[in-house]
Amino acid sequence: MNDQIFECRAAELDQDDPLAEFRGSFSIPAGQIYLDGNSLGAYQDAIHKRVQHTLKKEWGESLISSWNQAGWFDWPIQVGDKIAPLIGAGVGQVAVGDSTSVNLFKGLDALCQLQPGRRVILVQEKNFATDGYMAQALARVNPSLHVRYWRDEPLESVLDEQVACLLLSQVDYRTSERLDMSAVNRLAHSVGARVCWDLSHSTGAIPVDVLGTESDIAVGCTYKYLNGGPGAPAYIWVHPSLIEQIQPALPGWMGDARPFEFQVDYQPHPGIRRMVCGTPQILSLAALDAALDLWSEVDLAQIDAKRQSLMALFETALAEQLPSVFEPISPSDPARRGSHLSFSHPNAYPIVQALIDDGVVGDYRDPSYLRFGFAPLYLSHADVLESVSRLTRIMREERWRAPEFQVRKVVT
Amino acid sequence: MNDQIFECRAAELDQDDPLAEFRGSFSIPAGQIYLDGNSLGAYQDAIHKRVQHTLKKEWGESLISSWNQAGWFDWPIQVGDKIAPLIGAGVGQVAVGDSTSVNLFKGLDALCQLQPGRRVILVQEKNFATDGYMAQALARVNPSLHVRYWRDEPLESVLDEQVACLLLSQVDYRTSERLDMSAVNRLAHSVGARVCWDLSHSTGAIPVDVLGTESDIAVGCTYKYLNGGPGAPAYIWVHPSLIEQIQPALPGWMGDARPFEFQVDYQPHPGIRRMVCGTPQILSLAALDAALDLWSEVDLAQIDAKRQSLMALFETALAEQLPSVFEPISPSDPARRGSHLSFSHPNAYPIVQALIDDGVVGDYRDPSYLRFGFAPLYLSHADVLESVSRLTRIMREERWRAPEFQVRKVVT
Repeated sequence: MNDQIFECRAAELDQDDPLAEFRGSFSIPAGQIYLDGNSLGAYQDAIHKRVQHTLKKEWGESLISSWNQAGWFDWPIQVGDKIAPLIGAGVGQVAVGDSTSVNLFKGLDALCQLQPGRRVILVQEKNFATDGYMAQALARVNPSLHVRYWRDEPLESVLDEQVACLLLSQVDYRTSERLDMSAVNRLAHSVGARVCWDLSHSTGAIPVDVLGTESDIAVGCTYKYLNGGPGAPAYIWVHPSLIEQIQPALPGWMGDARPFEFQVDYQPHPGIRRMVCGTPQILSLAALDAALDLWSEVDLAQIDAKRQSLMALFETALAEQLPSVFEPISPSDPARRGSHLSFSHPNAYPIVQALIDDGVVGDYRDPSYLRFGFAPLYLSHADVLESVSRLTRIMREERWRAPEFQVRKVVT
Repeated sequence: MNDQIFECRAAELDQDDPLAEFRGSFSIPAGQIYLDGNSLGAYQDAIHKRVQHTLKKEWGESLISSWNQAGWFDWPIQVGDKIAPLIGAGVGQVAVGDSTSVNLFKGLDALCQLQPGRRVILVQEKNFATDGYMAQALARVNPSLHVRYWRDEPLESVLDEQVACLLLSQVDYRTSERLDMSAVNRLAHSVGARVCWDLSHSTGAIPVDVLGTESDIAVGCTYKYLNGGPGAPAYIWVHPSLIEQIQPALPGWMGDARPFEFQVDYQPHPGIRRMVCGTPQILSLAALDAALDLWSEVDLAQIDAKRQSLMALFETALAEQLPSVFEPISPSDPARRGSHLSFSHPNAYPIVQALIDDGVVGDYRDPSYLRFGFAPLYLSHADVLESVSRLTRIMREERWRAPEFQVRKVVT
């Protein structure tokens, strides 16, 4: 297939794209192709308007009274209600606040509580680093627990009746491999274990149905495909049948049933609000709330379809332009992967730097992966094709050999 | 002393006020006297400029590269370095992020680790509610620990060699009573216990010297006298002689020594950065960073002197205008109290509501306290006098009896 045929196909796909209208809401630097929405989603101007209102009006003019009048007090749950439909949760089941890391700690402790006789937290070794660290820390603070790792063996072989809970990422942050939540939950429940899901690389990109898959607890970040802003507050969902049994690990006054009575003994709010801890970071919540507004108009099936279409075009064009240069790391079946693709190459690091220099922003992950995220709300098929074209030029001209691309930065 | 003499005295004090220039930086609604800076500090327009830059430029134009280029990665410690001189800490000793509640959990766990043979967390019962809840939760997660309460008895009588650590507020959020950090630390250390200080009601208002008083760990919030914004991120300071011995309770990837290697085992950063947990909420940090800028020009001795002067004027005028109407709850010695004053009255709740309605914003705290905070950066002596005058009118005209002032709101 020659270049022109690819271009025609991309143009056709873009013309038929039912999500094309959303691109205008986002700010992407001119000439840049942003394939890192799986790391930090893009900015919308609507966010500035909203944050300005919170700063100048709610805080600046109404000061402390905004906890009531602007409803700041209820934002952790109200913002959660905007995330709920994106993960298949019900109204009043999601609390927003703290970081994903902190919410993982809350979630793991909650599930271990439900089975006091069981001592093992079963952690997928390939999880994002913070997930394992939180499990290790919980087992250090609570010495009756310990961490067991699930590596490449079949899950059945490491799952037994000692396991209190599993800590799993639906989508692997490096390889994009996706677990079948329904099948894993069923398997876990069959031995009486429960599952804490990390949905950071799923939410807003692929289908998630926490209730339909009979999940127990799920946490996730909001600064990737949800575009909530750098370090935007995370969320936690707890199955409604479990919430009343949970004493939170981090019982801040904002999760108490009577926060302004300042009682000596904590009495958890009856619902998901008990998972709210201290005073929420209102500015970051305002930004996230504004970022989430457009999701009420988004058809999630279209998100999933466009993700698949963008990824397939990238793979096909890359295989055509640079056959056998990059080793695909991600599963080829669209139903078995998330919304990013990784490829291995011995010079992955400088290649990613040369790409960024040429306006194609992906990222590098150890040991040798180029990683590209495909955010359906603001990427076109033409973008995808152009990114492959620039990558091809970098490889053919060996631009990545330039000395400035060899120096490691803190964040790629 | 008649009204005119009070007015002359207030005018003289305001004329000689070396901090008067700072008032112009803050936005206080016209006609309002804001005596609630001990709950939520006031807004500065400089914050909007800074947040707008972070939104539109750093996030909107530079996207993921701002973790390096804008230095987001280092903000938790850089912002901490602006707080350090306000609490007598050194450079690189303060980490900013999470809520006060979450930082209390980290701090308590850290101190309990240092003395594995000791099992008691000694908690001041009068602490802000969240403090006790965090101690209770830590003792639930780690069943080898338990909570003992310090009530009104002498501290010596409840402090023994079973105590791993104490959890104390330097300034009581209700009564304004202030503990002598140096004396308490000495007493605690004499039985081998350590102290976690909550400085939420101290920082930016009264002298604090964590190193000079040989403190162990201190945490505090930044949305009161530091004016960081609603729910602004909290801070934690750990004595430099202890930091290397601490395995954080919440070891997020951002506190790891090699965060972008994504190793399976956590290796804490050598310094205070290990107390950083997950990805920091950058927008809230930007706002706080801007709010802290003016502190580099503030003389803390002048803050302490002005606080005393404002509070003394309020007390004297109130005693003159409404003798024996309100029972003073706070200590009379300026060295034994923080920067707010509480008064008991059987109708405290409706009186506070009537005051707010009349533009004097204080707050109510159970069981029967009117609470007024005196933030030296944006209050004048004339404000203080006017607040007493409006309170006097409300009491003489019994305006607080109006039905609308009897209804309880979530936050006063």
